[in-house]
Amino acid sequence: MSTPSHPTPVGPVDPAHGRWRPLGLDSVRLTEGYWADWQRLNAAAIIGHCDDWIERLGWSGNFDAAVRGDLPGARRGREFSDSEVYKLMEAMAWEVARSGDQELDQRLRSLTDRVAAAQEPDGYISTMFGRPGQGDRYSDLTWGHELYCIGHLIQAGVARGRTAGLDDRLVQVAVAAADQVCREFGAEARQGYCGHPEIEVALIELSRLTGDERYRDQARLFIRRRGSGLFEGTEIGRAYFQDDLPVRQATVLRGHAVRALYLQSAVVDQAVDDQDDDLLGLAASQMLATLARRTHLTGGMGSRHDGEAFGEDWELPADRAYCETCAGVASVMANHRLVLATGDPRFADAVERTLFNLVATSPAGDGHSFFYANPLRQVVTAPPSGADEVSPRASTGSRAPWFEVSCCPNNLARTFASLAAYLASADEGGIQIHQYAGAEIETVLPAGRVRLRMETGYPASGRVLLTVAETPDDPWTLTLRVPAWAGGTGGARLTTAEGTTPVEAGQVRVRRRFRPGETVALDLDLAPRWTWPDRRIDGLRGTVAVERGPLVMALESVDLGADAGRAVVRTDEPPLERGGRVLVPIRLAPDPVDGWPYGTKAPGGSAAPMAAGLGGPFDQGRPADGSDRLPGASSGTGPAESAPERLVPLIPYHDWAERGPSTMRVWLPTA
Amino acid sequence: MSTPSHPTPVGPVDPAHGRWRPLGLDSVRLTEGYWADWQRLNAAAIIGHCDDWIERLGWSGNFDAAVRGDLPGARRGREFSDSEVYKLMEAMAWEVARSGDQELDQRLRSLTDRVAAAQEPDGYISTMFGRPGQGDRYSDLTWGHELYCIGHLIQAGVARGRTAGLDDRLVQVAVAAADQVCREFGAEARQGYCGHPEIEVALIELSRLTGDERYRDQARLFIRRRGSGLFEGTEIGRAYFQDDLPVRQATVLRGHAVRALYLQSAVVDQAVDDQDDDLLGLAASQMLATLARRTHLTGGMGSRHDGEAFGEDWELPADRAYCETCAGVASVMANHRLVLATGDPRFADAVERTLFNLVATSPAGDGHSFFYANPLRQVVTAPPSGADEVSPRASTGSRAPWFEVSCCPNNLARTFASLAAYLASADEGGIQIHQYAGAEIETVLPAGRVRLRMETGYPASGRVLLTVAETPDDPWTLTLRVPAWAGGTGGARLTTAEGTTPVEAGQVRVRRRFRPGETVALDLDLAPRWTWPDRRIDGLRGTVAVERGPLVMALESVDLGADAGRAVVRTDEPPLERGGRVLVPIRLAPDPVDGWPYGTKAPGGSAAPMAAGLGGPFDQGRPADGSDRLPGASSGTGPAESAPERLVPLIPYHDWAERGPSTMRVWLPTA
Repeated sequence: MSTPSHPTPVGPVDPAHGRWRPLGLDSVRLTEGYWADWQRLNAAAIIGHCDDWIERLGWSGNFDAAVRGDLPGARRGREFSDSEVYKLMEAMAWEVARSGDQELDQRLRSLTDRVAAAQEPDGYISTMFGRPGQGDRYSDLTWGHELYCIGHLIQAGVARGRTAGLDDRLVQVAVAAADQVCREFGAEARQGYCGHPEIEVALIELSRLTGDERYRDQARLFIRRRGSGLFEGTEIGRAYFQDDLPVRQATVLRGHAVRALYLQSAVVDQAVDDQDDDLLGLAASQMLATLARRTHLTGGMGSRHDGEAFGEDWELPADRAYCETCAGVASVMANHRLVLATGDPRFADAVERTLFNLVATSPAGDGHSFFYANPLRQVVTAPPSGADEVSPRASTGSRAPWFEVSCCPNNLARTFASLAAYLASADEGGIQIHQYAGAEIETVLPAGRVRLRMETGYPASGRVLLTVAETPDDPWTLTLRVPAWAGGTGGARLTTAEGTTPVEAGQVRVRRRFRPGETVALDLDLAPRWTWPDRRIDGLRGTVAVERGPLVMALESVDLGADAGRAVVRTDEPPLERGGRVLVPIRLAPDPVDGWPYGTKAPGGSAAPMAAGLGGPFDQGRPADGSDRLPGASSGTGPAESAPERLVPLIPYHDWAERGPSTMRVWLPTA
Repeated sequence: MSTPSHPTPVGPVDPAHGRWRPLGLDSVRLTEGYWADWQRLNAAAIIGHCDDWIERLGWSGNFDAAVRGDLPGARRGREFSDSEVYKLMEAMAWEVARSGDQELDQRLRSLTDRVAAAQEPDGYISTMFGRPGQGDRYSDLTWGHELYCIGHLIQAGVARGRTAGLDDRLVQVAVAAADQVCREFGAEARQGYCGHPEIEVALIELSRLTGDERYRDQARLFIRRRGSGLFEGTEIGRAYFQDDLPVRQATVLRGHAVRALYLQSAVVDQAVDDQDDDLLGLAASQMLATLARRTHLTGGMGSRHDGEAFGEDWELPADRAYCETCAGVASVMANHRLVLATGDPRFADAVERTLFNLVATSPAGDGHSFFYANPLRQVVTAPPSGADEVSPRASTGSRAPWFEVSCCPNNLARTFASLAAYLASADEGGIQIHQYAGAEIETVLPAGRVRLRMETGYPASGRVLLTVAETPDDPWTLTLRVPAWAGGTGGARLTTAEGTTPVEAGQVRVRRRFRPGETVALDLDLAPRWTWPDRRIDGLRGTVAVERGPLVMALESVDLGADAGRAVVRTDEPPLERGGRVLVPIRLAPDPVDGWPYGTKAPGGSAAPMAAGLGGPFDQGRPADGSDRLPGASSGTGPAESAPERLVPLIPYHDWAERGPSTMRVWLPTA
């Protein structure tokens, strides 16, 4: 292997070029607060939880069965279960680097040995294909997830390579697997690509790790081939696989959200490494269009249960928002890459929104259950999932310990373990802070070594205090993101040695000869605010949400003392904040009464008396008012006029469903 | 076989008891107008179209292959393709009875011979199961559709039995198949039931046709077993199969809509034949709850693409409304049975709504292409389907000639051919008219023979003129349904020999000693009206629809000269009608411009100027107004304030997509 030409940050992404160079786990350490707490929980609970379930269900055991020759008979799990083992191994690799946990290191080495033992002499590895009684290698690119699994193996290998060195056995396993892929799918070889993108982003990173161009070349081939119609004729349609169009002809993300976002990450990586500004411009504009028209308020992507897919533009219903947890993880991957590549803070805003309101929502506070889908409204209360129960993927309403398709918990584990790598970047001139959390940051600029301490109670409090612990004498630039929600009207202020000044949304740059001990403070106004949807979104018309700082708030039935679906909110004053609680004035609409739900009375008009009760099926009464309603219907508006109004607390959306079965809504109908 | 104890109407349903006795094709003949035209098109185009495709794709050929011993290798189509052949045969049976078409009779006999040749000696019949290389008989009740297919065979047999006599070969094939089912699944035998209900409604009707109680007993067993958890553990969940609850514990329809509605039809049949008023009351109240909370304005049922299923209460989005054509057919089946059983005109209203706005929407005007799903909004224009192309089932936006799952065209064919049976009923005291169409009706009451002529341009015109062509001297009662939309405020008037009087929604009864030539006229006010959704429907809040008589109207981009998604309607005056066209005042909202779609400006507030254009991805500009929008966003409301308003024609929803690719919406955002 050749040596890469630039310093390698210890993190999941290491672009060869681009606007900014990421700072990795070697440069950034989360110390306290919201994200540090999640990292500790990840170490204490989530990683072990995933490991236990993966052993228990036999998914890691599949590799042992392969060695014993017991496949396919003894195989357990879905066709992509290998990938869960690999994602967990990636999480372990980052976590070992973060914490130095030697027991976890041993566990990772043990898993590596089991995986390595199942690798074929030519590098190919899969517990699902290639043996007598199984499908041939690469015989089902559409649904087999073979290259997808290998992609996750490679990402685990990259994580281990960056944290334990290139000689680690996991790196060697990943390299051998990647070599086999390059031989099989090279320019002159099989012209295929995987139904589920993932190998692309993995191969580019392996190239960055090892300096071997072949992997980047192979990724470029996979990306270029996509859209040629390999998945023509599948009932689900080509767009599901992002195979409807070549990447360079697309204007917006579409199809299966996780697939689209993994692919997008790889496209950004390719554009950056190739210094292909046209492709980067395209990738950025595809993402901006997706943020503008196909993204939920939480940052959640994928509106459809059907195909786990993006919907059409403005198809963003609250109740059926799929917003898969893995799509949140993948969106963070793609948007973070775009921040580094373009320097555009809008992508960092998207990362923040998605981390706080989607990634943070999935796991329960104890780290032992998870949401797979993250809708913005829960219509019916769901029974709690059994602690021992494997759930279908799309259940909503209560977090489940595990799923038949259990991609999300492991995806969270690897994200939490590597979260420090998403906070900051550097360039020749200074350091950029993209996300706010208690942390220590240290890197060497051309001017010299810089150490920063970031202290903040964010998102509970809006002050971010940066202390320059070590600095060269020469000037350098500290760049801070000012979130869009805080900018423009005095919602953000910067305090430096020179005083306090309002700052606008976007980025604020402080270029100075800093002195050790000097502080820079960013104050963000966290007063809760009404947030209105674009009028083109059918599913949200006539509703409003509340946000507080980066947090999307939610109304839960537990706080309302009634079904959250009955809430109607008054918005003539801003939402209140009292004693740390966000309160909004709410009245209850009347309880549902059955009747034909479409009529000649405008909502808000007074209710007409109904001629007859619902009665039995033999009741032939009719309303006497000419309204087109079934007997027994109340108009649903009349009695509400006199319903008492009261102040009801909202909670951060990411905390919902922690207090037992409930109904919930983010978007509240307005009076 | 024993002889049934009461006269058998020539129609799909013949209840043993119940409020009213249906009049069949032998008593009612459609003569002119909207539904007669569809019947003619069915005869001239649709039935032949289905027959051609079924032959061409080898679905009827599967039976020949079975005889040749070429199965499973030569088998074509999905696991339920046998049922398409049977539904087509049912359509042919009704059509032969309606028209006397001898060529079609020969074609049906030929198909019957081919099917019969594939029947096993013990009566079992399936091209999918039971041979070497195929699954064992009834080895996959969850997904195999085996009993479902046999159910459709039995319905075809019943149609033939009622139109050509019990000695017809198709009846014998059906009886032999039913006998095998009864042996296999009887009280002491296998305790299973089919994943897709259908056999139940078929067996009860076969019992009614033949007088053999065994079939009704078997249906009762199937219905009673349902909900015992046979389909536990399927990823899609038990509710999909209506297996989550016993029928008597359910309060509303749920799961796969077609399955739920076929089952509901059987439950009504069982309740009626058993004179089980508790069960009938339950079935009626389940349907009323479904009409009140889970039915689209068009009568369409099934809100979800995912599982082709009912959604939760009030989950009725326009754009993603699935509203499968077959669910419309099944809803007509179930609601018609409830009309007969209970006499409640609300169910006849539902039949009318569904026929005019769902069943009539699916087929193109030439009878050669069909909608599978019938959403109430088309967001993007779809390319026309190729005339030779088999489409995935859920495509929307353009009708397709055929589908991979092609249940809908054949279901329409059998419904159109038997449509006369849904118009009227009789009891000891008189005749009830439920649906309005040009028709001749003839039956024998205890008082003597009655012949009626119904003349109407409905739904284009609102006058229904009934002429008593023949009548006994004794008095009898003519009962007319007054649609809910017309009742109460002078919207409906009845003219008899005694003068004209306003009538209320529900039913109006005219009891007289009629004289030959005497007329009764019902005048329904068809002035177009605004229809407002219940406030609990998230997806429709802030919108209004237009209805004209029984027709739901739609705005199509072809008439707007712009994307229908941009329309905003003003509702302070009623919709206009000019020269037979319905017109509404519409302005165009501004064209979409990309920006973060959630912000601090309430919709309707004035737009703030944006600081920067969208530019390239390296643009880091921010809006200067503190709104939470991406640069380049317009508020989507500001310029609209001054947009000119104009009168735009609406078309009946059932006519949309007949003029090339378009966008469409039924529910129009209000100003």
